[in-house]
Amino acid sequence: MKQDFSPAWLDYSLPVEVAKNKRLVKRMDIKEALSQAYTGEAKAALRLKVYAQKAEDEGYKQMAKLFRVIAFSEEIHGARALKGLKEIKSTEENLAASFESETQVAEVAYDRFVKLAEAEGNKEAVLHFSQSKDVEETHAKLYKQAMNHFMEERETDYFVCKICGYVADGVLPEECPVCGAKAKMFVAFQG
Amino acid sequence: MKQDFSPAWLDYSLPVEVAKNKRLVKRMDIKEALSQAYTGEAKAALRLKVYAQKAEDEGYKQMAKLFRVIAFSEEIHGARALKGLKEIKSTEENLAASFESETQVAEVAYDRFVKLAEAEGNKEAVLHFSQSKDVEETHAKLYKQAMNHFMEERETDYFVCKICGYVADGVLPEECPVCGAKAKMFVAFQG
Repeated sequence: MKQDFSPAWLDYSLPVEVAKNKRLVKRMDIKEALSQAYTGEAKAALRLKVYAQKAEDEGYKQMAKLFRVIAFSEEIHGARALKGLKEIKSTEENLAASFESETQVAEVAYDRFVKLAEAEGNKEAVLHFSQSKDVEETHAKLYKQAMNHFMEERETDYFVCKICGYVADGVLPEECPVCGAKAKMFVAFQG
Repeated sequence: MKQDFSPAWLDYSLPVEVAKNKRLVKRMDIKEALSQAYTGEAKAALRLKVYAQKAEDEGYKQMAKLFRVIAFSEEIHGARALKGLKEIKSTEENLAASFESETQVAEVAYDRFVKLAEAEGNKEAVLHFSQSKDVEETHAKLYKQAMNHFMEERETDYFVCKICGYVADGVLPEECPVCGAKAKMFVAFQG
């Protein structure tokens, strides 16, 4: 019955350093508290969505709903904390930031994860990380495209692969170019 | 134009410790990579939703859609990483875990944040953290209730306050008991 909660709420722990003789206490500031709240709530929201999926798989429709509702509530808390950090800029800047972030995530983070998984011979992890890397690269392209056509808002439909997260722009593909999933595995974002 | 991306993707950094004389290298393992991917993607997804809201506020409907679509894609990556960690148990266990987690978040984390904000005289932060604390306590009650009636799945509608995240069970309140927002500020989860 016991689960390890550490990834969820240990983020909230208060970093107090006490140097014994000097009575030096480094206290958390509001910015750090907001940052921890943002991280903790974002992780909680996603975890609850996975719990919701699991509950649905097990036939507990009402439990799935409760998890989803509380996930939504946690997102409100997390968004409030993020806004409190005053890091949200104009849409044009947010777009540029997202482009840079995706590029780093693909080229630095996931690239390392893939190499690590390969070195360990963990095929499942290689597949997961390399597909995520490929998808992040396509995200970067979508952002770049949007940056180039920022002022001429064209209307586009999107289709997202539920398996690997690949985002198809405009047309639903017959199968996912990243993971090979069939068209029925895509979620449409239309209108 | 430059934004600080550190909260987003520095989570992905590879923790390599090199003790100079010993050539001791501590490498990341797959579990750590999955945990960082989960955290990074969860934060990215929530940040992109806030960007989407901002884009809508600025009248960029299509940009808002793009941010939302990519947020959904990042959630797929994050959920995949979380599942890879093999920490998702049965619904009954997930419910118990969520109850314990909420209690800790309210009594430990937010309680500290409130005290910190009070000590610093930051009224905005006091309001935010204390409202979040109150809401997490009501989440814990909802989980407890669900645990007590686990087998008798009663159908319930929920209403979530967009301002503070308060979850009303069954009936839409005239105003939010936590932050005082009017009924029109609630999002309904019905059916």
